[in-house]
Amino acid sequence: MQPPAGKTPTLSAMTTLDRSSARRGETDYLAALLARPQARVLVVVGGKVVIRSNADRTAAQLALFHLADLPGPTPSLEAMQFLGVQPETGAAVFAFALSPEDAARRDPTGTMLAPAVDIRSLAMQGVLPAADLSLAATAVALVNWHDEMRYCGRCGGVMESNDGGWKRVCTACGHNVFPRTDPVVIMLVTDGDRCVLARQPHFPDGMVSTLAGFVEPGETIESAVARETEEEIGLTVEGVRYLASQPWPFPHSLMIGCIANAPHRPLSIDPAEIESASWWDRGDVRQMLAHKHPAGIWVPGPHAIAHWLIARFADGEL
Amino acid sequence: MQPPAGKTPTLSAMTTLDRSSARRGETDYLAALLARPQARVLVVVGGKVVIRSNADRTAAQLALFHLADLPGPTPSLEAMQFLGVQPETGAAVFAFALSPEDAARRDPTGTMLAPAVDIRSLAMQGVLPAADLSLAATAVALVNWHDEMRYCGRCGGVMESNDGGWKRVCTACGHNVFPRTDPVVIMLVTDGDRCVLARQPHFPDGMVSTLAGFVEPGETIESAVARETEEEIGLTVEGVRYLASQPWPFPHSLMIGCIANAPHRPLSIDPAEIESASWWDRGDVRQMLAHKHPAGIWVPGPHAIAHWLIARFADGEL
Repeated sequence: MQPPAGKTPTLSAMTTLDRSSARRGETDYLAALLARPQARVLVVVGGKVVIRSNADRTAAQLALFHLADLPGPTPSLEAMQFLGVQPETGAAVFAFALSPEDAARRDPTGTMLAPAVDIRSLAMQGVLPAADLSLAATAVALVNWHDEMRYCGRCGGVMESNDGGWKRVCTACGHNVFPRTDPVVIMLVTDGDRCVLARQPHFPDGMVSTLAGFVEPGETIESAVARETEEEIGLTVEGVRYLASQPWPFPHSLMIGCIANAPHRPLSIDPAEIESASWWDRGDVRQMLAHKHPAGIWVPGPHAIAHWLIARFADGEL
Repeated sequence: MQPPAGKTPTLSAMTTLDRSSARRGETDYLAALLARPQARVLVVVGGKVVIRSNADRTAAQLALFHLADLPGPTPSLEAMQFLGVQPETGAAVFAFALSPEDAARRDPTGTMLAPAVDIRSLAMQGVLPAADLSLAATAVALVNWHDEMRYCGRCGGVMESNDGGWKRVCTACGHNVFPRTDPVVIMLVTDGDRCVLARQPHFPDGMVSTLAGFVEPGETIESAVARETEEEIGLTVEGVRYLASQPWPFPHSLMIGCIANAPHRPLSIDPAEIESASWWDRGDVRQMLAHKHPAGIWVPGPHAIAHWLIARFADGEL
């Protein structure tokens, strides 16, 4: 199901890969896919994906290696993550993660496994096709999770990768763990005519954005929106509407984009989370989106679901 | 924000507790709350919550102990999870988890720490007030997570509880982890007039329900709904609409309830996940909801978001 163009944020674009999730546990099936000449390997170096750019760096694509073209020893199936199969070509795509040191050993001249670029930059620059970005997001989220689950949380034993990288199993106690995805609510607070945009201390100069926070145990999406809005800016939410979601591999989140209706009252800011926050009308918000606000205030770019929520408000669609 | 009655599933009801999440890191604040006479402790024994029932077991409430009334040694602040503060009374509520063996040592006669009841039964029986159920769900999800993160996934070191139980920190490498919540899509597939209900092999006799599955890394809510529907029953989804969500502490999920529109075609079932699945019209579904279907087929009760999705379809609200 392809979402209608312009209606969903960039990283939401679906890959065209068939994830074949029901067959991840079949080692013979994965080994056969990997042995086919059309199989490809996406390389992740220190959490960054290896890409190929054109000369002026205005466009790029993922470097999808033939297994035989990977510099250094051929990795085993167990060392890779199975991302899926391209339906048209039957080509399976695997991710292979390396430390920067291992990459340098495999590719001393730095011609094959560089440049490795962090996915946030790729998303912000908008140089990667949406399907490539989505594939890279899946790979990076999965690799980040493997990195966090080297040892068993229950017994401290060594865990190993199973099911094409979609399960880890403890070699000591047999405990199974599955990829972690953290639900995060991200909400545009509005009274209908104005919206709240806030600055977190770590934002680049002049940038403001929507509020956001993790969904906690025991919460619904709606109650998380209400709690975070109350905590961060002191407003009591009167209604919550879900609009769209976006995978966000930092390290492995699902951004759940909502509109929160709240009365137009002065904001009471939690200084631990928010540096400043204000109500803005549509005119101001349109200038921020266009990077033409007189005070130099701007909002995240089209790679982020925050941009999409803010743009829909600016367009009067909410 | 209290959702309108009847419009959201049971476990979605918000507790009236203020989670005070910004102050969880202040040990002095938590210690002072625990020292106040109105502080209360909810006890979790082997993953089950301790309750008090009336004589005929038609109603129950959580057993919320004064710290001084807990049998056995007084637990330290570090051994408990801080759930929040009741705004009216200023009473802080903490969760304290015990193994069945520890509970038996503390309460040899089994009068104080029994009965401990699993939260799924409590939800199904509908005997616990919604706020109690929501509180218990938070406690059990948090306790389940602590149990899974005794050791550091990065280095294998021992982790210890911090921030009132909302963070675990590795004593060896300092790695921080936060409570895990797994986003799960649960979707009623409908062509407008009929809906698909399916049986999983482990369901009780005669029970059917909606489809469901984990949101995977790199997916949106909508793409997870489309993938799971394709995988489980072979239908291509034409549209997805989010309706409501529900925390589900088994072990720590967030159920994201959606309607998925699909064409009325024969179903192609994945036997690994689904035992059987069929299209049903509103008349059949109403009989299932009332436990009056001639074939003895029934659907989950009002504790589950599946019931709520199915009931809205039956009422023609979708």
